[in-house]
Amino acid sequence: MSGRIEEMLSWYESENPGVVAKLYRLLNTGRLAGTGKLVVLPVDQGFEHGPTRSFAPNPVGYDPHYHAQLALDAGCNAYAAPIGQLRVVARDYAGRLPLILKANNSDSLYTGTDPVPAVTASVADALEIGATAIGYTIYPGSAGRNEMYQELRHIIAEARAAGLAVVVWSYPRGSGLSSESRTAVDVVAYAAQIAAQLGAHIIKVKPPGPRIDNSAAGDAFIKSGTPLDTLADRVGEVVRGAFDGQRIVIFSGGPAKDTAAVLEENRQTALGGGFGTIMGRNSFQRPHDEAVELLHAVMDIHATTHPPV
Amino acid sequence: MSGRIEEMLSWYESENPGVVAKLYRLLNTGRLAGTGKLVVLPVDQGFEHGPTRSFAPNPVGYDPHYHAQLALDAGCNAYAAPIGQLRVVARDYAGRLPLILKANNSDSLYTGTDPVPAVTASVADALEIGATAIGYTIYPGSAGRNEMYQELRHIIAEARAAGLAVVVWSYPRGSGLSSESRTAVDVVAYAAQIAAQLGAHIIKVKPPGPRIDNSAAGDAFIKSGTPLDTLADRVGEVVRGAFDGQRIVIFSGGPAKDTAAVLEENRQTALGGGFGTIMGRNSFQRPHDEAVELLHAVMDIHATTHPPV
Amino acid sequence: MSGRIEEMLSWYESENPGVVAKLYRLLNTGRLAGTGKLVVLPVDQGFEHGPTRSFAPNPVGYDPHYHAQLALDAGCNAYAAPIGQLRVVARDYAGRLPLILKANNSDSLYTGTDPVPAVTASVADALEIGATAIGYTIYPGSAGRNEMYQELRHIIAEARAAGLAVVVWSYPRGSGLSSESRTAVDVVAYAAQIAAQLGAHIIKVKPPGPRIDNSAAGDAFIKSGTPLDTLADRVGEVVRGAFDGQRIVIFSGGPAKDTAAVLEENRQTALGGGFGTIMGRNSFQRPHDEAVELLHAVMDIHATTHPPV
Amino acid sequence: MSGRIEEMLSWYESENPGVVAKLYRLLNTGRLAGTGKLVVLPVDQGFEHGPTRSFAPNPVGYDPHYHAQLALDAGCNAYAAPIGQLRVVARDYAGRLPLILKANNSDSLYTGTDPVPAVTASVADALEIGATAIGYTIYPGSAGRNEMYQELRHIIAEARAAGLAVVVWSYPRGSGLSSESRTAVDVVAYAAQIAAQLGAHIIKVKPPGPRIDNSAAGDAFIKSGTPLDTLADRVGEVVRGAFDGQRIVIFSGGPAKDTAAVLEENRQTALGGGFGTIMGRNSFQRPHDEAVELLHAVMDIHATTHPPV
Amino acid sequence: MSGRIEEMLSWYESENPGVVAKLYRLLNTGRLAGTGKLVVLPVDQGFEHGPTRSFAPNPVGYDPHYHAQLALDAGCNAYAAPIGQLRVVARDYAGRLPLILKANNSDSLYTGTDPVPAVTASVADALEIGATAIGYTIYPGSAGRNEMYQELRHIIAEARAAGLAVVVWSYPRGSGLSSESRTAVDVVAYAAQIAAQLGAHIIKVKPPGPRIDNSAAGDAFIKSGTPLDTLADRVGEVVRGAFDGQRIVIFSGGPAKDTAAVLEENRQTALGGGFGTIMGRNSFQRPHDEAVELLHAVMDIHATTHPPV
Repeated sequence: MSGRIEEMLSWYESENPGVVAKLYRLLNTGRLAGTGKLVVLPVDQGFEHGPTRSFAPNPVGYDPHYHAQLALDAGCNAYAAPIGQLRVVARDYAGRLPLILKANNSDSLYTGTDPVPAVTASVADALEIGATAIGYTIYPGSAGRNEMYQELRHIIAEARAAGLAVVVWSYPRGSGLSSESRTAVDVVAYAAQIAAQLGAHIIKVKPPGPRIDNSAAGDAFIKSGTPLDTLADRVGEVVRGAFDGQRIVIFSGGPAKDTAAVLEENRQTALGGGFGTIMGRNSFQRPHDEAVELLHAVMDIHATTHPPV
Repeated sequence: MSGRIEEMLSWYESENPGVVAKLYRLLNTGRLAGTGKLVVLPVDQGFEHGPTRSFAPNPVGYDPHYHAQLALDAGCNAYAAPIGQLRVVARDYAGRLPLILKANNSDSLYTGTDPVPAVTASVADALEIGATAIGYTIYPGSAGRNEMYQELRHIIAEARAAGLAVVVWSYPRGSGLSSESRTAVDVVAYAAQIAAQLGAHIIKVKPPGPRIDNSAAGDAFIKSGTPLDTLADRVGEVVRGAFDGQRIVIFSGGPAKDTAAVLEENRQTALGGGFGTIMGRNSFQRPHDEAVELLHAVMDIHATTHPPV
Repeated sequence: MSGRIEEMLSWYESENPGVVAKLYRLLNTGRLAGTGKLVVLPVDQGFEHGPTRSFAPNPVGYDPHYHAQLALDAGCNAYAAPIGQLRVVARDYAGRLPLILKANNSDSLYTGTDPVPAVTASVADALEIGATAIGYTIYPGSAGRNEMYQELRHIIAEARAAGLAVVVWSYPRGSGLSSESRTAVDVVAYAAQIAAQLGAHIIKVKPPGPRIDNSAAGDAFIKSGTPLDTLADRVGEVVRGAFDGQRIVIFSGGPAKDTAAVLEENRQTALGGGFGTIMGRNSFQRPHDEAVELLHAVMDIHATTHPPV
Repeated sequence: MSGRIEEMLSWYESENPGVVAKLYRLLNTGRLAGTGKLVVLPVDQGFEHGPTRSFAPNPVGYDPHYHAQLALDAGCNAYAAPIGQLRVVARDYAGRLPLILKANNSDSLYTGTDPVPAVTASVADALEIGATAIGYTIYPGSAGRNEMYQELRHIIAEARAAGLAVVVWSYPRGSGLSSESRTAVDVVAYAAQIAAQLGAHIIKVKPPGPRIDNSAAGDAFIKSGTPLDTLADRVGEVVRGAFDGQRIVIFSGGPAKDTAAVLEENRQTALGGGFGTIMGRNSFQRPHDEAVELLHAVMDIHATTHPPV
Repeated sequence: MSGRIEEMLSWYESENPGVVAKLYRLLNTGRLAGTGKLVVLPVDQGFEHGPTRSFAPNPVGYDPHYHAQLALDAGCNAYAAPIGQLRVVARDYAGRLPLILKANNSDSLYTGTDPVPAVTASVADALEIGATAIGYTIYPGSAGRNEMYQELRHIIAEARAAGLAVVVWSYPRGSGLSSESRTAVDVVAYAAQIAAQLGAHIIKVKPPGPRIDNSAAGDAFIKSGTPLDTLADRVGEVVRGAFDGQRIVIFSGGPAKDTAAVLEENRQTALGGGFGTIMGRNSFQRPHDEAVELLHAVMDIHATTHPPV
């Protein structure tokens, strides 16, 4: 076991060997095995945005097999998707590709101001398909946040007993926040903290922007002289917000963008102490070989870029 | 066993030996052991206010280990925090530091007029981490108060069966009260009463202000000639409201303030018959040695200051 | 067993011997033992109105022990209070004083137009403290009434299985009624009927006023020539509303008033066929000996005053 | 995935992806990864025979860590042991060494004629420690066999729902059989069949001897011209007994013996179509390096020896 | 925390912080606090042998309070007894004396050849009385052993979830063994192994005698050159049998004997690597001050005697 993996697993000393074995597996699979970094392929856009928006740009993606194979071809640490999609591939890829079952999902045919995702799968489903982790989305800032936090509490209790890792997507959203505040650096750090407090083993957030939402947070930044100029600086604050970097925090890629932008965003993330990325549309909406090439480039960045000592 | 501890435990004669043993432990740990007074370090601000506002002022506090060690270094009776944060330290500090698991929490990314905290942990979690007590917040005055009272009732039933002590944070808040009424002396006394009636073993309230919210209460004060001029006077009324002082009532420190103000507030609290303080931001936002020094000074006040006979 | 008690217990022939034994005990305790009348001391005002308004007028009342001792000193049939308060005294008074556990309570820091009390205790709690009966408040007229009726149904089912008597406080209140209608004679009679229908063994209502709320009820009164001039007349109608007097109906004392008014109200109640009173503030806000003297006078009235044959 | 592994997994098409992933893992770990063969290190002799007999010959084996490390050093596919022993190592080896939790065990301080092992662990335990499979022993031939079969049925049902593989040790023993019949070829084949019928994914039996227990079986052998002269011949019959080789059957090594005998036994087993061996005392009672050398030699035999086509 | 305690707790890394906190408490209470050694006062002889045989020699022992006070006076690490006896003292000693609830017991009014103790208490009882650990007796060698092992498995699962430590009394006895074999060195080591495998945190056995029961064990002793001449030598083998000393093994004192014999037995136990003693009759059948003096002498031996390096 590499010293870095050993160090990272030591952060999870409250977890049983079943959970630790799953974290080990996520950290020791694929092209980034043993580096302590994670690049995950998530494909929940069929449910979240609809198939046309998601798959028409690269129509092979209508077939769920395509994504599992892409994750394997690119050497991702894991593949994350809703239960329906995972059931299509779970048997073929059993033992070869760690699966993260996304247990709740929002469709966009109804979008209220205070969204609450539907719970679409269970820990029992995760065990049945041999998943390595269960994923869950919370929306801090929504009037329905407590409902999500409390459901997550039950899922975490069940997942821990079953020896599964838990990945929490923590996305500020809802009537408690303006649209611009969703990526404010203090808000994203807060979202990471909430996920960590609720018991997430791995936390996924959006890249934090330069905005500061809360004036007391702004004062604290000034008083402490925390630099926030670069994305790397801001990623640093988010990672600190997750128990001072003692929880794995990965960053989403967001909407499809050009290759240079993707690479620079990942370089900044790695420089700031981020543990990797979860990159969907930027992968599966590109042609297969181009996607693999991009994922490899992103992995290389994460494998070789570290915060300045 | 000191005579004072024996007297205090006699107030809990309806509780089983498991609960009494936990109260004994809280009262016989740290620098105030045996005095009947409690100084508790609470660190739930990461969840309640966000990590930036809470920890940027003293960035070592991003790491959950810092707070447990601070509580131990200062000789606090206990350390209170949400489950995520406690899991990080529970094993390292097992047996050495009584833990109070805060089982519900509010984040401030969404703040309605009638707040209801999310339930974030259970009695089973408390047993797993070896906690000495479980903590729970109620907001009398909120339209959602019954939901909280009733959930608390279930938690108290479970906690008593498991031999755990219960600490209730009772904070008047919500559309039933104006903002200024939250610290009115009759309102704080009422909040203490509600917690006692619901079965709290230890009650945490805010220091009561000079305002009187309810005119009938005001008339009763006049009729009975109750003095309310000093904080000590008002603390006296709050303590009487908790079964005439037969439940342990401790007072929160509130926002960070200067040392003299902290010490005077605690002197008044002790003079009025308060049983101690639960002091977060005033501790962990100061540098370590300064925080220990302040906590020691506060402990000394509580150990030596008593209501006039 | 006195003939009157035997007659009264015969009204409860659908109940198991466990419940009947509890009714027997309530009817055969204290100064009114064997008379078929009940004077109960209720102290839930600490929760319902706050400790200051309730206890500052006679500050010994801050201590829960005071009330149990007062009930015993005065020879009351029973003492009714919330769980927190009863736990303080249950052990000391075990076997000497019948306890009625008030299982739901409203605080007045938040008061909506359609109140629903919080459920604060359970049948299991009642058994644990050795209570003789469990008490429950319903607010006919509130939009939340069904929630209360349905919870009561569950509590009655549990209480009967456990052999406990059930006392229902039935207070018309809420957006379905004007404030003046709450004590209209037809409304109070209706409230008594609802409690009886839901399975109450003992019903507590407020003294009915001269107002008639419902015009059809008014017409029926006229048509039947029912006299409603005196409180005694109106108490008669309320008692008839409780299965023609085959459920025990007792009347509350309401706000503190002068001694003559209390005595006259009770004389009228007894004359109308009421089974006694449940008198809180008029007892515990008076000095101890005065309270005992008043309670004795009230008991004497109930023991000796009967409806004209 | 190697073609052979793909073929083998196709035999388990009734199993969910969770179970298949665990079989994949067992078949793709260690020095024999991808060959379709298994060499498992079992250490339950501490419980079954006592620590002195088991570990005094090579006293480093008193320490449970020794065996897990030996399994890893030798490149075994898995390590099998009782729960107490596995808990000692599960965290340190999490993710690095597949564990088989032996869920029932017999000690030899009491040995009846119709043995029934004690159930010593559960599927919940297996999930907690992150085991890949759960193991269970049955004794066909014992008057208590049904008790074992039925308990196994429940364990298999739970294990399948949890996505765990099931390994059944099937050892004929008890008052239904003479001592010599325990290794009769028809009896061992029968034991393999029973395990397969009950739902075992992997079956462990003892090497079959030349004896034939049942005369009708003997007649059938004669009629069919089945060769039984060599151990390879007899292994062939046992493997046919496990759904014509469509369940993985591995063979135990039995008491410690000399190296040549071990190697020849394994050569015969492989030649007869056996899928590998589970070799305890012959491994851990030898000095570490010698044990690794022997295990490597055994693995080489299994990797390179196949039934004649 | 002393380095030795830290080392010992590291052996229990599979246990949750709740269990670790209880082990910490047992190891940090009384006169031996921090030494890694334990002297426990057990008083189950009233149930096991009857009150006359047990308490007539020192009649103050008829009163359960006597024993709790003796344990406290002598500075024992814990006091172990059946539920009835513990309920008498649990409240008075809450928080001051760690209790071990013996959850099964055998009386001697019926003694079969294959004894099975009655289960007399539960984990729920242990939580109610605030016990630090739950104790359980197994009789390896009894035809009823599986019944005991399986009940113990359930108790251990519940105790671990509740954060309680588990102490197993492992006494070979029953028709599987001759009377002399009960203390044979290989048999006692085997009994320790079984308890460890089933999940005991602390194991109590009898001092091993020079007899060797199993010939294969005898051969293994000879082959390995294990010395068995002294009690210290034999204690060494028993401790090795408990996961090479990675479980706490303590030794019982057996029937009352003279002081010199008690001290020498304890010196040998300590010299062989034993972790202490659980000494009943030799304590409570002596006059109080003599018992305290003897217990102190025994503690001094354990605190200062260690195996030769």
